[in-house]
Formats: sequence, C-alpha cells, structure tokens
Amino acid sequence: MNASDPVALSLDQATALVERILRHAGFGPAHVRTLTTTIVAGERDGCASHGLYRTLGCVATLRNGKVVGDAEPIVHDQAPGIVRVDACGGFSLLAFERGLPSLIEKARGNGLAALAINHCVHFSALWPEIERITEAGLVALICNPSHAWVTPAGGHTPLLGTNPLAFGWPRVDALPFVFDFATSAVARGEIELHRRAGLPIPEGWGVDASGRPTTDPNVVAGGGGAMLTFGGHKGSALSAMIELIAGPLIGDLTSAESLAHDAGAGASPYHGELILALDPVRFLGAEWAAHMARAEAFFAAYQDTGARLPSQRRYQARARSLREGVRIPRDLHRDLLTLLE
Amino acid sequence: MNASDPVALSLDQATALVERILRHAGFGPAHVRTLTTTIVAGERDGCASHGLYRTLGCVATLRNGKVVGDAEPIVHDQAPGIVRVDACGGFSLLAFERGLPSLIEKARGNGLAALAINHCVHFSALWPEIERITEAGLVALICNPSHAWVTPAGGHTPLLGTNPLAFGWPRVDALPFVFDFATSAVARGEIELHRRAGLPIPEGWGVDASGRPTTDPNVVAGGGGAMLTFGGHKGSALSAMIELIAGPLIGDLTSAESLAHDAGAGASPYHGELILALDPVRFLGAEWAAHMARAEAFFAAYQDTGARLPSQRRYQARARSLREGVRIPRDLHRDLLTLLE
Repeated sequence: MNASDPVALSLDQATALVERILRHAGFGPAHVRTLTTTIVAGERDGCASHGLYRTLGCVATLRNGKVVGDAEPIVHDQAPGIVRVDACGGFSLLAFERGLPSLIEKARGNGLAALAINHCVHFSALWPEIERITEAGLVALICNPSHAWVTPAGGHTPLLGTNPLAFGWPRVDALPFVFDFATSAVARGEIELHRRAGLPIPEGWGVDASGRPTTDPNVVAGGGGAMLTFGGHKGSALSAMIELIAGPLIGDLTSAESLAHDAGAGASPYHGELILALDPVRFLGAEWAAHMARAEAFFAAYQDTGARLPSQRRYQARARSLREGVRIPRDLHRDLLTLLE
Repeated sequence: MNASDPVALSLDQATALVERILRHAGFGPAHVRTLTTTIVAGERDGCASHGLYRTLGCVATLRNGKVVGDAEPIVHDQAPGIVRVDACGGFSLLAFERGLPSLIEKARGNGLAALAINHCVHFSALWPEIERITEAGLVALICNPSHAWVTPAGGHTPLLGTNPLAFGWPRVDALPFVFDFATSAVARGEIELHRRAGLPIPEGWGVDASGRPTTDPNVVAGGGGAMLTFGGHKGSALSAMIELIAGPLIGDLTSAESLAHDAGAGASPYHGELILALDPVRFLGAEWAAHMARAEAFFAAYQDTGARLPSQRRYQARARSLREGVRIPRDLHRDLLTLLE
C-alpha cells in the first residue's frame, strides 16, 4: 500500500463513516441522516466536490457557529399551492425533507405547487432533491442564490451568486432527465484551483474591477474583480431571475445580502431556496401515458443528434459505485478520521 | 420627399392601418384586435422584426391556410392550478387573452398557477404577454418550442427550436423587470440576413452536418447543418427543458413535431405555450411590500455594477414612440398598402 493509493470504501462503509463524524460533531439525528444521504450520493455519483469532502465543511460550519446543528424546521401551510419551511438556521436538507410530503400533495391536488425554504444554510447540489420529486412522478425546478461573487454581463462589481438552476423530468423505466448547473461561467472552485496552482484562467470567466476581461484568478476571486455568468446577457438575466424568485419572492436573502450576513467568515451561504413541482397527470389527465412516451421519443432523438443527455456521466458513476463502492484520496480519509478524535 | 425616406405614423394611425389590413384579409374581430395590439406594441418598442412587418406574415399564413382566422378558443378548467386553452388552430394571442382572467384568479387563490395554450399558431414575442401578467402584480414565466432548427451542444442534427424563455417581475412605480430571449445563440433571422448579404456568420452560431463549427450561413440554415444554442451545454439543457414543459407536459408538439407538421410550407410554428404566474402576495402575506422594496434595491444595485437591466432599450423606444409615433421603411408601407387591394 502506497501513501498515494486511494482508500476504497463500500457505500455502507462510506455512510457509516460520515454518520459517525457528523454525530460526533454534534449534529442532531435527523440532520445526520439527511446530510449523510446527500454527501454519500455525491461521492457515489462521481461528484467528488459534493462528496465525502463536504463532510469537512459541514463540521467546520458547525464549529464556527454558522449553522444550527439540531435545528427543527417549522412547516407553514402558506397557501393552497405553497408550503413554506423555516429551516431555523439549520442545513437546507432536513427542511426540504420536512416540506416534501406537502409539496407532493399540493402539486397532485392543484397541478403545480411551490416549496419555499427559508433561513437555511446551503452547500449541497440540487439534483438529489430533484430526484426525490421525480421519484413521485412530478416535474421539478429548483434554484437558489448563493454569495455575491458574480457580475452581470456589462458590469464590474459582484452582485449575483453562482445561482444554480436544476430541472428534472420523471422518465418511464429510466433514471430521470436531470440537469443542475451554476449560472456562473464556472464553479467558484475552478477559480480557486487555478489560483492555488498559479495558473491563469481562460477568458470569459471573469473581469477586473473596471469590467475588463482578465485571466488573473487573484483579481477575479477576491481581488476587486468579479466572476462572469455563463451565456453573456442571457445567462445574466437568468441569474437575476433566480435572485428574485428565490430571494424577495420567498422573503429571503439575495446573494449580496447573504455575503453581507457572512461578514467574512467564509461559511456556507445562508439564504432561501425555491422548489417548484408540476404534475403531468393533472396537466394531461387520461392522455398522460401517451405524452410521457412522446418525451421518451424526444430523449432518443436528443441522443441521435450526437449530443449526450445531461447527468449520464453521473449515472454511469452511480452504476459503478453501486457495484464497486467508492475510492477517496488517502489524505481526505485521514482528514475525515481526524474529525473523530 | 425621397423614395428612401421612412413613413411616419402616429400609434393611432399604425393601429388603424394594421386593423384594416387584418380585417380585409379575413381575420375575425377578436383576432384583429389582439394581433394589432401586439404588432403595434412591437413597432412602438423599437422591435422592427416584431413590428408592422409581421402583418405581412400573418396575412400570408392565413392565405396559405396555415391559421384559422376566426378560431374561437375553448377554455378548460383543467385543475385548481391549471387552465388550458385550446386555440383551435388560431393565433396564440386570443387564446392567451381568453385564459388570462382564470390564470390570474388561480394564481391569487393558490399562490401560483399555469396557463397551457394548445394548438396555436405562434409568431409573437413573449414580453407583451409577460406585461399583461405583471400588470396584475404577478411574477410571470413563459416559454414555447418553435421549429427544429437547433442542435444541442455536441450534436450535429437539428432537434430543438429557438425556444424563447421570458420572465417578468412587477415593479413598484416602474415598468416591470422583463427579459425575453431565444435559447438559440442568435435569432433565425440573423442567419437569414447574413445569407442574403452573402456574409459569413461568426463562429458559435452553427455547425455543419458532421457537428463541426462553420461560418457558412447556407450550411447552418437549411444546408444540412444546424444552429447552436446560447451558452453551450447549459443553454442546450435549458432549451430541452422548454421542449418538455411546453411540449409533452401540456400535450402539445415539440419543435421537431411542429416542423414536421409544417411539411415545408414555411408557415409560423404550430405548437403550445406554457405560462406560469406566481403571486408575491400569497408567498409573502403582510411582508409583501417590504420584500418588493428589497427587489427594488436589487435593481438599483444591478445598475450600479455598470450593467444594463434587460428591456431598458425597449422602454426608451416606447417613451419616444408614445411622444413621436413610429417610422417604418417606405417599401414596407407600400407592401402593407398592397394588402388592402
């Protein structure tokens, strides 16, 4: 065994390890369960940046007093089509779980419904939540602000978050059609990796303090410049929409307000999250199955163009992990074990 | 007066002209009214490609038998949160108007609601409909497929439409925050203009039949290649979402099916349209006004970054047209008058 060899873990072993660490750190049992499920799902699906590595961040956020480890979410029946869940300063995942049954019931009753999560600490990818909704046969759309690191096209000062947008469509006899992307040109972590490696970033990722294109990661991340959105003014408009519908519309913070709330602590963003669910059965009635089959024909045609459907790489990693377990870097494994001391 | 001088029309004159032409062509009175309002609004807002020029297309579509000029839309109360309107082969605008009161009532009752328009012929920009919803104090999201001219990132054959996405947020004492963009890299018309002028198109607009980048407009538009979406794989994912939620979800055609239905006639696309409305008052209750004020602070900060809010150029053109009327090319005016013979 070499010091650089990865450590192999079955999914059960990975789950047990993360659970022990989070329990030891002081998270309440329901948060331990929801955090562990999402963290292990990230590792399982080959998203190392949302995998076991995130356990370190969860524990650090708790130690820094930036998350309530045993917060008990409060569910409000806001309107016939709206459920609001106050996460009470806990991580978003338990609030989502507590609101999900009402979201599903309201979507099935009305045809569509919204779940608004407030006052949550947020670090997770959105696709695990998308999949919980598609499992119920519903179409899902989720977005949230983050921290103000991104400037809109034509701008020079940070205002927008990396603002992810995720969508899911339930498929017949297949894993769902899911996408989950940041509306920034790249993830914040990509800029950090270039900064640490002393490498320039490609043009189009960011601007300097006067709005001019720059390839200096130090300028873009913290040096007076800003990241850019994907897709120019169209991506910027989309990101602004997310600030509005997952911010003021649900009575929660914008990315600029979330960053101000952080006050330099470097913790996970604290804000809200908007989840929409739409029920194909209510839209289509008896014609439901026929139109879901037309969607399947669309997916086949999509692949016939030569393009890859989103999430396929993730699903391939999932199939492999379910057979073989996961492998994590040895130094990450060591850092994780340190948290049990 | 020079043959190349534009023709100046007051907005009342422009309205009267378009109404006369559409009536003379054989459209029913309700379609004449809704078509004229939207066409004149496009010209008023400086969108010449959605202005009086479109009158020619409406008349040609009717003469070709590709639209029902006196179609009477049928409104279905599909679910507590869903109203469906069968446009019965008419233009979409009257179907929207007939469904709007129910959409507003359902959104105010449930917190959010959907209007699904089926079997409509569609040529219009989405922002006039967005503004009808924001005028009611609601947040609006609209999308529709079009014709399959666009390939997803990594693909080489057309599958997706230019698939517009539009959003609106009602503002206090200001015109609404509105964006309305095609998810294709550029509008189809831009490729056509380059083709007619014999000019190459910029890289990033399209690919040839094997998926390689090309600058030949003849290859991209009709010559075996395809247009591209904006924003790479993210824009492609968004466009696919629009195919799904404004196609199979509402029991209507995808862009590929719409193009097949056209069978080479070159008429306006025939498909459905999905409209979502969300009520800030139901999301926020008594805190409504305070959070709308936070949205206003976001808009101010957006402009402070140096970026321009979407739709501002359109609103400037509107203010000018309301004072001074509009000017249209003399040959367009002549072509319009020909339709009265």
